[in-house]
Amino acid sequence: MPTVHVQLFKGRTADQKRAAAVAITEAVVKTLGGNADTVDVIFHDIERHDWATGGVLWSDKAPAPPQAPKAP
Amino acid sequence: MPTVHVQLFKGRTADQKRAAAVAITEAVVKTLGGNADTVDVIFHDIERHDWATGGVLWSDKAPAPPQAPKAP
Amino acid sequence: MPTVHVQLFKGRTADQKRAAAVAITEAVVKTLGGNADTVDVIFHDIERHDWATGGVLWSDKAPAPPQAPKAP
Amino acid sequence: MPTVHVQLFKGRTADQKRAAAVAITEAVVKTLGGNADTVDVIFHDIERHDWATGGVLWSDKAPAPPQAPKAP
Amino acid sequence: MPTVHVQLFKGRTADQKRAAAVAITEAVVKTLGGNADTVDVIFHDIERHDWATGGVLWSDKAPAPPQAPKAP
Amino acid sequence: MPTVHVQLFKGRTADQKRAAAVAITEAVVKTLGGNADTVDVIFHDIERHDWATGGVLWSDKAPAPPQAPKAP
Repeated sequence: MPTVHVQLFKGRTADQKRAAAVAITEAVVKTLGGNADTVDVIFHDIERHDWATGGVLWSDKAPAPPQAPKAP
Repeated sequence: MPTVHVQLFKGRTADQKRAAAVAITEAVVKTLGGNADTVDVIFHDIERHDWATGGVLWSDKAPAPPQAPKAP
Repeated sequence: MPTVHVQLFKGRTADQKRAAAVAITEAVVKTLGGNADTVDVIFHDIERHDWATGGVLWSDKAPAPPQAPKAP
Repeated sequence: MPTVHVQLFKGRTADQKRAAAVAITEAVVKTLGGNADTVDVIFHDIERHDWATGGVLWSDKAPAPPQAPKAP
Repeated sequence: MPTVHVQLFKGRTADQKRAAAVAITEAVVKTLGGNADTVDVIFHDIERHDWATGGVLWSDKAPAPPQAPKAP
Repeated sequence: MPTVHVQLFKGRTADQKRAAAVAITEAVVKTLGGNADTVDVIFHDIERHDWATGGVLWSDKAPAPPQAPKAP
């Protein structure tokens, strides 16, 4: 307790999930209390063709334009 | 909001899910109000060997008899 | 099958849910096939203070401005 | 009704799930009443690299030591 | 692991849930292996007016006829 | 996207959930990328009498001993 379920687009690397598990567990313990050992984080990969917003599958949406490089 | 999760047997085509996303989003907005852009529909494919009813896996149940062709 | 879970802000009336159950079931059968009798629709009410978007609880967001009356 | 969702590490055999569906359905009917035909059991396989406890992915944890053989 | 979620009509007593937690945990360990201490069972009460089957809310369905007393 | 569901014992304050929504959203964006505006965090309160571990409802377990005050 608590148990955290993360539904996200398929495609993140094991390293990203590894870092997310640490960061989410810390965020939960820091704000909701409890012991990190009892916090579960479970990732549920969702294909873009299985997630629709506004009635349109994300596999059918044009990819977002590349973000302008941040100012140095 | 709202977010709609659809748990269904694996095997529907992308076109079926495309049509279902549109129809479910319309049904939700028409009856529950709100804005189509804020409605998420997420499909969760379940294998027949992962879904049991009455204690029997659907992969172990005899397939339903073919439906009589509809009257023209 | 399929089973449809609808997560929505608490506050809809029984009539709205009654209409949504009919409309969602029809939408599912029309697009994904199958038999209405095997379709389950389950509503999960979520309090606004239990749903955050962009890190902000919806109970802390200013209510949306009233929509301009539709043209006659 | 009721519907039982089982989240478990990926890797169980079809026979294990077949036996689990029977045993869980019996357990539910015996204690919560109702009719076995209306009980659904759905298995959700989770990869070890998608489940973290204490901030550590189970794919990164050392495997548990082999259990000593039970006394005859 | 595993984690078991039970969605059921609101109204079961604490004793029924107490017995169900024991029986479901035993069923899971007996068929899927693992250690009872790592099995979580979570009950999700659903109101009858929040669960529809065949497009009809269970709060709108006629209650099932009382079952004939079992033969002695 | 992503959508984060947090299942936790009932009893946290609105302030705790407010802080958790911010911290979890930051953790998700920092490690999984994406835009904070598209991250949903949903809290699901679970009563202690609805959550069992090792077959025992948490409402039946002795409360954890008070933690010794941290060294200054």
